[in-house]
Amino acid sequence: MTIIDVPASRNYQVIVGENLISQAGSRIKSFRKGVTAAIISDETVWELYGSPLEASLETAGFGTIHYTFPPGEASKNGENYLKILNFLAENKLTRSDVLVALGGGVTGDLTGFVAATYLRGVAYVQIPTSLLAMVDSSVGGKTAIDLPAGKNLAGAFYQPSLVLCDIAALSTLPQEIFRDGCGEIIKYGVLYDKALFDKLLAEGFSFDREAVIARCVELKRNVVAEDEFDTGARQKLNLGHTIGHGIEAQSRFTVSHGQAVATGMAIVASAGEKAGITSRDTVQAIRQILQKFGFPLTTEYSAQQLFTSALSDKKRSGGTVNLVVPRQIGDCILLPTPVSRLQNFIEAGLA
Amino acid sequence: MTIIDVPASRNYQVIVGENLISQAGSRIKSFRKGVTAAIISDETVWELYGSPLEASLETAGFGTIHYTFPPGEASKNGENYLKILNFLAENKLTRSDVLVALGGGVTGDLTGFVAATYLRGVAYVQIPTSLLAMVDSSVGGKTAIDLPAGKNLAGAFYQPSLVLCDIAALSTLPQEIFRDGCGEIIKYGVLYDKALFDKLLAEGFSFDREAVIARCVELKRNVVAEDEFDTGARQKLNLGHTIGHGIEAQSRFTVSHGQAVATGMAIVASAGEKAGITSRDTVQAIRQILQKFGFPLTTEYSAQQLFTSALSDKKRSGGTVNLVVPRQIGDCILLPTPVSRLQNFIEAGLA
Repeated sequence: MTIIDVPASRNYQVIVGENLISQAGSRIKSFRKGVTAAIISDETVWELYGSPLEASLETAGFGTIHYTFPPGEASKNGENYLKILNFLAENKLTRSDVLVALGGGVTGDLTGFVAATYLRGVAYVQIPTSLLAMVDSSVGGKTAIDLPAGKNLAGAFYQPSLVLCDIAALSTLPQEIFRDGCGEIIKYGVLYDKALFDKLLAEGFSFDREAVIARCVELKRNVVAEDEFDTGARQKLNLGHTIGHGIEAQSRFTVSHGQAVATGMAIVASAGEKAGITSRDTVQAIRQILQKFGFPLTTEYSAQQLFTSALSDKKRSGGTVNLVVPRQIGDCILLPTPVSRLQNFIEAGLA
Repeated sequence: MTIIDVPASRNYQVIVGENLISQAGSRIKSFRKGVTAAIISDETVWELYGSPLEASLETAGFGTIHYTFPPGEASKNGENYLKILNFLAENKLTRSDVLVALGGGVTGDLTGFVAATYLRGVAYVQIPTSLLAMVDSSVGGKTAIDLPAGKNLAGAFYQPSLVLCDIAALSTLPQEIFRDGCGEIIKYGVLYDKALFDKLLAEGFSFDREAVIARCVELKRNVVAEDEFDTGARQKLNLGHTIGHGIEAQSRFTVSHGQAVATGMAIVASAGEKAGITSRDTVQAIRQILQKFGFPLTTEYSAQQLFTSALSDKKRSGGTVNLVVPRQIGDCILLPTPVSRLQNFIEAGLA
């Protein structure tokens, strides 16, 4: 078991280890006693882990209620958000109670946004059950819903009170979904940590779960601590995301986030090479590791299609998009790119 | 013209004076230049002040778009919130742009919540056009929407960048709506300022607009500065609100906020007297000033009905509701009241 302390506007711990779901009640009890815990989950995850979580909470003295919704990105919408708010209000949850997000990134982002805004803020605990959610959305306090015009277009910065990454939950994860998480893990290597990158390149899918997840959480913790509200250093976490969000949006979210980000990294590295920023070795290493994990290196969508979606990106500041471009493995830069030149840049990466 | 500096997580100014709507463009320009201003307003207020506001913004170099909705509390709902988010996303507003809330409390609360959450936060300017919004919802950063289960059940703490209270806008306010604002103004007197209370009691509706509004903003500024996130001193601002929210909810929001709060003050003072907290003189002074402004001193709803609605109140912390009870004019206390005794307390105030 590894414990990572996250300093933020609200300090909290991320715990990575085996069988943490069955310890949830006793761990939540350490900061919130004898209240109602409202579990929010998708139907698939609820089926797998709902009962042990409920049992753990009830044994620790919590009352429980739960709300479930169909799995998938399509549930991360405004209507579902309002339904959950109404569910909590009808059950008269107060500011003393606690929300528990049990599931992947969709559940975490959605529940986090509900927690940030129900009664203007109630405590919540993240129990991410996907690899992607463990390394990405469970740290950093970004909560969100999608709008028809694009992903994550509404949300709040809001920190959880506790994050429990139960490695055991990864065993029920379909291979495709597990691989998605690997896309984000590779991203951390490219951004900050050549040793992590080399380890993943050598070991492929058989990497040490606890060690690698804990390392990614630590890396994200460091950058979030430096820039909680995403105005500077934190923007680097968007490596692969501007183009990746474009791929996701163009596919109407049938291409997963992890795969879209992985392909986005390959495209931005190729474009970076042509712009004289990314070294040839780096482009090759990125392509090599993505192939090892079975990610496509390019996309069927045109530069114009990806450009159109990129214009809806939150990161756009007036007429400029901040692209993240690798120089070497472990060394990336922010490249402010005028909207007028973005399509050409993407084009170069697709060639 | 009076300028009040508000220190908060984001410092800003509240300006009270004549004809500020026509100065909006040049004043917003001082901190945000040449971007798009998205004006959110209800249809009635837009008809009255939309054109001069747009003209002022465009003269100052802003692009403008606007979104309007039917006037009234019923528009402060989740569906309208999502529609405004979609409107902004479809118009590709970025974090460099600015929202302008033109209207009463409904418009301010709703626009503030949109501003707090669109792209996880964009700048917004409040131009309150009702007396109630000028003295109450424009200061303090509380934004919200109503849920079917109750008022203001979802929202965020989010500060505006500027508040312009244009006294001239009060001239088009229906007498009933103006009176509502007087309910909140009287509340500030009862809570903090016997001189303000005595002035209002002496002058009735003819009080000096700028001086009284500025004084109320200043009083609210002081308490918010002490307690931005509503965990202590700020709870006193809820004088009359626990019972008032109950009256509003029971009437399905046909009784206005200001009138409900006024009646709530009368009931809580009567109950306070029976509990040995409120002096006899104080109860009489409160009843006298409310009558001078034409507010009802009691309600048709039963203690049980008001109690049921009070249970949905955000202020409830587990099994306890913090009631605000006057001792003397200018001196009120927080009275933590067990839920089990709340109905009896209300009953005493209705008798």
